[in-house]
Amino acid sequence: MRELPAINLTLVSEALQGFLSEELRASGQKRYVLGLSGGLDSALAAALAVRALGPERLEAVALPGPTSSAASLEHARLVAEKLQVRLEVVDLAETGRLAAATLGIGEDRLRFGNLMARLRMVALFDRARRSGALVLGASNKSEILLGYSTLFGDSAASVQVLGDVWKTHVFQLGLALGLPREVVDKPPTADLWPGQTDAGEMGFDYLEADPVLYWHHEGGMNDEALVAAGFAEPLVTAVLRAYRRNRFKWRPTVIARVSSSCINVDRFLPRNPR
Amino acid sequence: MRELPAINLTLVSEALQGFLSEELRASGQKRYVLGLSGGLDSALAAALAVRALGPERLEAVALPGPTSSAASLEHARLVAEKLQVRLEVVDLAETGRLAAATLGIGEDRLRFGNLMARLRMVALFDRARRSGALVLGASNKSEILLGYSTLFGDSAASVQVLGDVWKTHVFQLGLALGLPREVVDKPPTADLWPGQTDAGEMGFDYLEADPVLYWHHEGGMNDEALVAAGFAEPLVTAVLRAYRRNRFKWRPTVIARVSSSCINVDRFLPRNPR
Repeated sequence: MRELPAINLTLVSEALQGFLSEELRASGQKRYVLGLSGGLDSALAAALAVRALGPERLEAVALPGPTSSAASLEHARLVAEKLQVRLEVVDLAETGRLAAATLGIGEDRLRFGNLMARLRMVALFDRARRSGALVLGASNKSEILLGYSTLFGDSAASVQVLGDVWKTHVFQLGLALGLPREVVDKPPTADLWPGQTDAGEMGFDYLEADPVLYWHHEGGMNDEALVAAGFAEPLVTAVLRAYRRNRFKWRPTVIARVSSSCINVDRFLPRNPR
Repeated sequence: MRELPAINLTLVSEALQGFLSEELRASGQKRYVLGLSGGLDSALAAALAVRALGPERLEAVALPGPTSSAASLEHARLVAEKLQVRLEVVDLAETGRLAAATLGIGEDRLRFGNLMARLRMVALFDRARRSGALVLGASNKSEILLGYSTLFGDSAASVQVLGDVWKTHVFQLGLALGLPREVVDKPPTADLWPGQTDAGEMGFDYLEADPVLYWHHEGGMNDEALVAAGFAEPLVTAVLRAYRRNRFKWRPTVIARVSSSCINVDRFLPRNPR
């Protein structure tokens, strides 16, 4: 069975740090703002930003909601201490409850999860405006390809430093950069209810999904070829179903084109002109 | 002095209606959800959707905030009646006040305006999920080019039906489609405080800005050429300053590329695979 190819962790880490330095410089902003969830992805994004620019250039924010576990906030504090960055806590529990009541969300976990992901985005972009900062996103390539994210929620950021990094390599980079074992080893979760995990939601975990995604997305192998290569058919079906059905999230907004100068279709301009 | 070229209103209107039908069909969703602000852009987007698909395929939502004028809600009701669409009112005043207090926004009008635009997005995407709908955006080409919008707020929608239509033509289409004169004639406003207008904020109005934007963005004329062609220098400077400084909003998120299969850089896939 085919594996995910190994990467040079030092080289990738350096490339990501260079990206963070260069994007900040080009934007003319002063620092990054990042939501520290207590999970591995945001801890790794924070570690890369601190290596690239120092702890003063990162503003970490913990954004607990009505259903967040106490362990998440503890882990966020642990990471902030380790990296010597300031951690602000913006408690979104009350706002989340009121917004959910106003919208009549009731017990709908999916709508509630989307609501909280978007309220976190709202808080982070508010902090960014207050501080003259870019919002640093922590979505990884695996979850983007699987669509395990909220459109205009966690997927909305100024830069996505891990957006081209498979979750398998996020684990390896987390270890290589010395992140706390509690954070590296805990199962990925959106932290929406006690015991929730990404794997429980999707039916497979990222370490299983990554080689399937890689050989399909990068290697051009179709369903049949993947099964012939030794991947379990139910896994291939489940992974590629998520990959296909969430593709609209890659292109969140479509503009109706009626001219020859349609924005983002006919006209692409430098993002940071100087 | 150069004018904005005239368009065939019938043809453009038909093209936009065709776009709305086709995008809905391809997405597999049932209808559109739209925020009806009481202003012209959202009224025109609604009118186009009703012409394309009938009133049952549009769910209009009025989303008043703590500072919205009563006239805005009246105008939204007027448009909904005229088009025979159901109008839901989701009052965001309390949620907006609590979120602003939680974030410590105080009297900062810019942060407050961004907050309310994003809370409206949150409510619309919640409605879309509840109803199996796409979010219909009403940003026009002039305001997108000038950056007079909130990133991940009003600019965030599944489709932007007016995103390639100059505001000058939005006025003309509004008249041609028989929208109420109160709505067509009132000055464009973000409705954030009494008496606020887009023109008051930006220092020029859209009818003045549009030819400058057109001949720069589409016609390739630089600042000097525009002034030589008869446009007032302060207008050219103010319009092109807004055009240049808000360009990051066109490409809201940048992914750090470390592979040859980076999403939205190396791999573009159909948005609605079937």
